[in-house]
Amino acid sequence: MSLSMYQISVPVFIRGFSILSALIAKAEAYAQEKKIDPSVLVNARLAPDMLPFAGQIQRASDTSKATIGRLTDVKTPSFPDEETSFADLKARIANTVAFLEGLDASVLDSSDTREVILSFGPNKAHLGGHDYMLKFALPNFFFHITTAHDILRHNGVPIGKLDYLGAYSN
Amino acid sequence: MSLSMYQISVPVFIRGFSILSALIAKAEAYAQEKKIDPSVLVNARLAPDMLPFAGQIQRASDTSKATIGRLTDVKTPSFPDEETSFADLKARIANTVAFLEGLDASVLDSSDTREVILSFGPNKAHLGGHDYMLKFALPNFFFHITTAHDILRHNGVPIGKLDYLGAYSN
Repeated sequence: MSLSMYQISVPVFIRGFSILSALIAKAEAYAQEKKIDPSVLVNARLAPDMLPFAGQIQRASDTSKATIGRLTDVKTPSFPDEETSFADLKARIANTVAFLEGLDASVLDSSDTREVILSFGPNKAHLGGHDYMLKFALPNFFFHITTAHDILRHNGVPIGKLDYLGAYSN
Repeated sequence: MSLSMYQISVPVFIRGFSILSALIAKAEAYAQEKKIDPSVLVNARLAPDMLPFAGQIQRASDTSKATIGRLTDVKTPSFPDEETSFADLKARIANTVAFLEGLDASVLDSSDTREVILSFGPNKAHLGGHDYMLKFALPNFFFHITTAHDILRHNGVPIGKLDYLGAYSN
């Protein structure tokens, strides 16, 4: 009837990265077919003050790591934002997934008693573990997967909503 | 330590509609300030084969209702997709939220034993309640909120990521 904090996050993140990997593969194939410099897609963005495709992947990676870092005592790996190619982005995803897959399912068992403090400039938000998960971690993670999808679609990559939703067997 | 199917869906949906309402208010103010016909924003889309802003709101509404319809015996209201203005979209949101707010928190208590069958053309996916929630309902809902945000941002509406994340006190 209920779900654990682990169930609603770590497998959801891993599945999300699988979907991002499939999006990257389609973007790579499209660039090759249309003879587009892949960096055009890697650096594409929807608005001047939004992150480019690469940034969406980097923030999805960071959001998943930070969820563990903020809700547990696990030390999370640090990945500098140096990706400039699809190959780099695939490596970033692989490293992030390796970290997530290495976590024990019990890692978030006490996470609802943690307080998370989010800082936005001078403003701070104090959130309990559940609220952090439902009001920040999951919405933020899906924001970056969706925006990565939207950037590619806006640039003509032949993908559709089903590429975002992914296979249900995963 | 764990969360109920209700906790991870209905309040998340209601909060999402509050965020969409705030986005609409900013889009309306922007159209007025810049003397843009509001229907330009209502009908704006990121790609020719993607839904416009109005469609993103309609599908967010439908996703939230279908989650209840597929996982319970509750009869869900039907809303025809006839919205053509910001006022119409605000009414659609209000009607959807009224339905969600009227649900008892126990409504999804047995939902993990339900099987949901999703049809995509000739393909059908059979999902248990948990999988349906985590692999379809929540990702799909956040897709539409994010894409609504992305459409407005792409069109110059002065909003940022914090408008998507919303106030944590909600």
